[in-house]
Amino acid sequence: MTKEFKVVFEPDNKTVKVERDTTVLDAATSSDIYIDSICGGRGKCGKCKVLIDGSVKSDETDLLSVEEKARGYYLSCLARVAGNLKVTVPKESRVESHQILMRSLIEPLSVIDQPVVKVPLSLTPPSLVDYLSDLERVTHALRNLGIEHVTMGLPTLNKLSRTLRENQWNVNVTLMDLWGREEVIDIGPTSDDDLIGIAVDIGTTTIVVELVDLITGAVIDARSDYNKQVVYGEDVLSRIMYTEEHKGGIRKLTSTVRYAINDLIRELVIENNMRYEKICRAVLSGNTVMMHLFYGLDPKYIRHEPYIPVMSFVPQMKAVKLGLSVNPNAYIYTLPCRSSYVGGDVTADVIASGMRDKKELSLLLDVGTNGEVVLGNDSFLVSCSCSAGPAFEGGEVEFGVRAMNGAIERVWIDNGSVHYSTIGNKKAKGICGSGLIELIAELFSNGIIDRTGKIQPDKDNARIEVGSSGNQFVVAFKEDTAINKNIVITDVDIQNIIRTKAAVYASCSVLLKTFGYGFSDLNNIFIAGSFGNYLDIKKAITIGLLPDLPLDMFKFIGNGALGGARMVLLSRAMQDKAEETVENMTHIELSVNSAFFKEFTSALFIPHTELDQFPHILKRVYT
Amino acid sequence: MTKEFKVVFEPDNKTVKVERDTTVLDAATSSDIYIDSICGGRGKCGKCKVLIDGSVKSDETDLLSVEEKARGYYLSCLARVAGNLKVTVPKESRVESHQILMRSLIEPLSVIDQPVVKVPLSLTPPSLVDYLSDLERVTHALRNLGIEHVTMGLPTLNKLSRTLRENQWNVNVTLMDLWGREEVIDIGPTSDDDLIGIAVDIGTTTIVVELVDLITGAVIDARSDYNKQVVYGEDVLSRIMYTEEHKGGIRKLTSTVRYAINDLIRELVIENNMRYEKICRAVLSGNTVMMHLFYGLDPKYIRHEPYIPVMSFVPQMKAVKLGLSVNPNAYIYTLPCRSSYVGGDVTADVIASGMRDKKELSLLLDVGTNGEVVLGNDSFLVSCSCSAGPAFEGGEVEFGVRAMNGAIERVWIDNGSVHYSTIGNKKAKGICGSGLIELIAELFSNGIIDRTGKIQPDKDNARIEVGSSGNQFVVAFKEDTAINKNIVITDVDIQNIIRTKAAVYASCSVLLKTFGYGFSDLNNIFIAGSFGNYLDIKKAITIGLLPDLPLDMFKFIGNGALGGARMVLLSRAMQDKAEETVENMTHIELSVNSAFFKEFTSALFIPHTELDQFPHILKRVYT
Repeated sequence: MTKEFKVVFEPDNKTVKVERDTTVLDAATSSDIYIDSICGGRGKCGKCKVLIDGSVKSDETDLLSVEEKARGYYLSCLARVAGNLKVTVPKESRVESHQILMRSLIEPLSVIDQPVVKVPLSLTPPSLVDYLSDLERVTHALRNLGIEHVTMGLPTLNKLSRTLRENQWNVNVTLMDLWGREEVIDIGPTSDDDLIGIAVDIGTTTIVVELVDLITGAVIDARSDYNKQVVYGEDVLSRIMYTEEHKGGIRKLTSTVRYAINDLIRELVIENNMRYEKICRAVLSGNTVMMHLFYGLDPKYIRHEPYIPVMSFVPQMKAVKLGLSVNPNAYIYTLPCRSSYVGGDVTADVIASGMRDKKELSLLLDVGTNGEVVLGNDSFLVSCSCSAGPAFEGGEVEFGVRAMNGAIERVWIDNGSVHYSTIGNKKAKGICGSGLIELIAELFSNGIIDRTGKIQPDKDNARIEVGSSGNQFVVAFKEDTAINKNIVITDVDIQNIIRTKAAVYASCSVLLKTFGYGFSDLNNIFIAGSFGNYLDIKKAITIGLLPDLPLDMFKFIGNGALGGARMVLLSRAMQDKAEETVENMTHIELSVNSAFFKEFTSALFIPHTELDQFPHILKRVYT
Repeated sequence: MTKEFKVVFEPDNKTVKVERDTTVLDAATSSDIYIDSICGGRGKCGKCKVLIDGSVKSDETDLLSVEEKARGYYLSCLARVAGNLKVTVPKESRVESHQILMRSLIEPLSVIDQPVVKVPLSLTPPSLVDYLSDLERVTHALRNLGIEHVTMGLPTLNKLSRTLRENQWNVNVTLMDLWGREEVIDIGPTSDDDLIGIAVDIGTTTIVVELVDLITGAVIDARSDYNKQVVYGEDVLSRIMYTEEHKGGIRKLTSTVRYAINDLIRELVIENNMRYEKICRAVLSGNTVMMHLFYGLDPKYIRHEPYIPVMSFVPQMKAVKLGLSVNPNAYIYTLPCRSSYVGGDVTADVIASGMRDKKELSLLLDVGTNGEVVLGNDSFLVSCSCSAGPAFEGGEVEFGVRAMNGAIERVWIDNGSVHYSTIGNKKAKGICGSGLIELIAELFSNGIIDRTGKIQPDKDNARIEVGSSGNQFVVAFKEDTAINKNIVITDVDIQNIIRTKAAVYASCSVLLKTFGYGFSDLNNIFIAGSFGNYLDIKKAITIGLLPDLPLDMFKFIGNGALGGARMVLLSRAMQDKAEETVENMTHIELSVNSAFFKEFTSALFIPHTELDQFPHILKRVYT
């Protein structure tokens, strides 16, 4: 009889019984806990770290530090069960959050000058002859330190008297600088001397919250999740339509996003052993529609010509008004938007890229369901949005999926045989954005599709079939997939992807031409967003999504919406720069721009109608 | 068989069956609906107007206008039931609100300079090339008018887009001036061009709300009611105790007072055919405890030495935070308090009296359950509070009552016979504050009590009895009262009243002496509050409550708490003056002042131990 052991997974509190020598990774999978393991459980990638309490056998590995080993960390693919175990699976080792981009590659700030400060006060206790009210006692003490025009809101007033007395009149007051006056947003013991804030990226698909030390600027921790609003519509337009068609729809979408943010804050607060009240500032970024829905404002007019948002610059508001689970007095700032389709996320990208500080010309691209493009330098900025379509997010493509577990993310075709890798090394479920770009590039490089994107009939190629909507190419055969179906790409799918890439390329092209530039005048191309993060630049150039320029000009800035929000959180100068950026950014509306349609049509080929725009591709494919 | 008819009273929705020819006034009284009838139902005063639907018989009267008669108004004392009736009793005909002092005798302001303004904007509609957000479109237009640093809160943002479009981009924006920035607190059609505010007096016993035209300064209408908090305690100390002893007590008292204010606002809004949103500013005054309870702040430390309030100066706050039924963006200002027992109501009295602008020396007295005294001129101000006790409000006196229907308010004794009048000319129910002062003065002037207040035994006087607590004097015999008991005043009652008057007089005396003055240095004595309003000055001097000074020096300012609040509502200069007043007012704590005890003891005689302080009384009584 084989001995069985009990494995408890935390913090999920899931228990499974497994046989001796089962890997912890397999035990986890059988409990529906998905541990990241890009190498497929071969002990090569080091992503599947877990903390184990109990008896395991494990091969040696260099992918864990001496310190990690001492603390009880193992690679779950190498650790084999040898007794009852408690296994703690850290968030970063889980698949679920893996594909939500939480990194942002920003330059460290030279100066942290955020507007919240803690001031220690040692007050004289009141007496019958020194009968100042508690509030005046505090404001007078602050005045003696040169801090004038101090106000205090109700939540702080409510705890003022008790806090002063409990701490024997020695307290730390937290002050927020507001337009030449100061507000006491919190009061607590002098031991409570750290300053915490959060940066939040509200994406259409995902939400990320970073817990930030406002004194050092360090990111303490971060959490992410899907934006649960997706159940009301995949993209911003369908969500606006939802609010138009459902009474109470705005309220529902607003509470959904606030609830999702609060969920992440709760995780951060609990796991970092902190109180909500500690969080005394928050900076948020998101596209214009996400901002409207966060504030509960009707986004209706964004959807209808001339596409006017309620607001671009949102006045700072208190957390208590917005239902955020932070200090109720904390002021919430959201990065300003330029237009209905160039939002605060793009403003944040610009800040994170630093392009506004450079003399050289830069182009910034943020491609998701919508694409946004910004061109400029330290003397001008111009932006546009292109309705890229959801092809790169898995929409409008038969087997397209989001960047999820089992999504094909890499494809190469070598001498007729197709190789691919999936997220989490799971059996394939579909193809995500980066996989589609690689697939089209490989199909084109291998002559399987022509310059118009049409699949070339080839009776000798078992992967080319005739489907219900024309020719199709089998990327993964039924028996290798998790869905018990062939995963194919069709002529129609390819046309949709070509339209998307053409829209992005044409947008860049039009912005440049409008200001008398060409691609060769560029010094930097910043690529923001999760799409960019997994993109193979060469293959994106091959299909004509990106211009044919030296590879070192392309710079990934990761989650610029989050990085920019954090920079603004840490610096008033950056906040000013964000506002200045939006005020000075010209917006071009492509939907009424005739030059755009010409450029778009020219770009509906692989890589482009004008092949001389792609000299390197020309060389690789045609010589 | 006598025919009975049904009379329905509205808006009370009370029904009573009465015989034919019953007066509507009597029908109302039997339904516990108290209609004002100062003349005692003799058709002489014209106060008891009601609107009648149905058949009545009535004598002719000149006290109703032709128009009123045409609309169906009758005097309820003259109208006799002749069929089933629906009777609507207007608020102003009801006794309940009669004795709540709503008048304030303030000088008209020379300049109205309140901080709210309406600005008409004629905006260019947006287009694809003019794609400013709605908020920016408004702020840019204001900037063109020289109005910078404009913000907008969520409630206004919420209606912004709809309002702009419904009014074809021609709107009035309501701006509130805030520390060098402006906030758009409302937006509406250009036809909506008036500006409305409210002044509120939150008394311990009563609440008054005035609807004020912020452009002309005129009082549009006013409503008052009892402060329903009385069920949790008669005076401020018992209410604090309630909050200490009952979990959730603060919340209960706070919602009670806010609800009461909202009730009055609702009446004003409905009867003046207005929307709540029209009310775009509110200024409140009240004593320090009332202010704490209005804001929901714990008043605990006010009750315990050294008697420290949470706050004296309350930062302006938005109505939405305080649950007031006005424009949610309206800023609420409350007059600052000097100390735990010299509150914003006293600050308002000072403003209403104008004493801060006079070179001459003035004394201000506000006597209710607590008495507050302020002495000063344009170069100094000093205040104190004296726990006068509730004698003048009907407390600590066996047959003492509030100034209500049936309260004896005037007494004169003429050759041994006692005459009195009651409020509303009802059968006597008890004696209110002004009645008690007149009674003591008359008893003293007629030798029925001596200088110590003791009732002199006199077997020949049928009104002098021996009761359970010593001698007592019958003011009204059983058969003349509404309570089927003799209404008497006892030795103990008189001692309580003497202690109260002594506390007030001694407070005034100490304030003067502390600054090297005497009563003869005074030029004005301002008397504020409802107590003052019904006071016979000569009799108050007779008992030694007020100093023996020329009668024309005494000036009633009526409800100064309300008048001062209205002045601040209408003028930022007055708001500054209120703050300057509090900042520069010295407070003297009498409870630890030895001079006070000496003065108090000397004042425990009628009129005083030192008779030369009362030369006129001396002359009248002893010559």
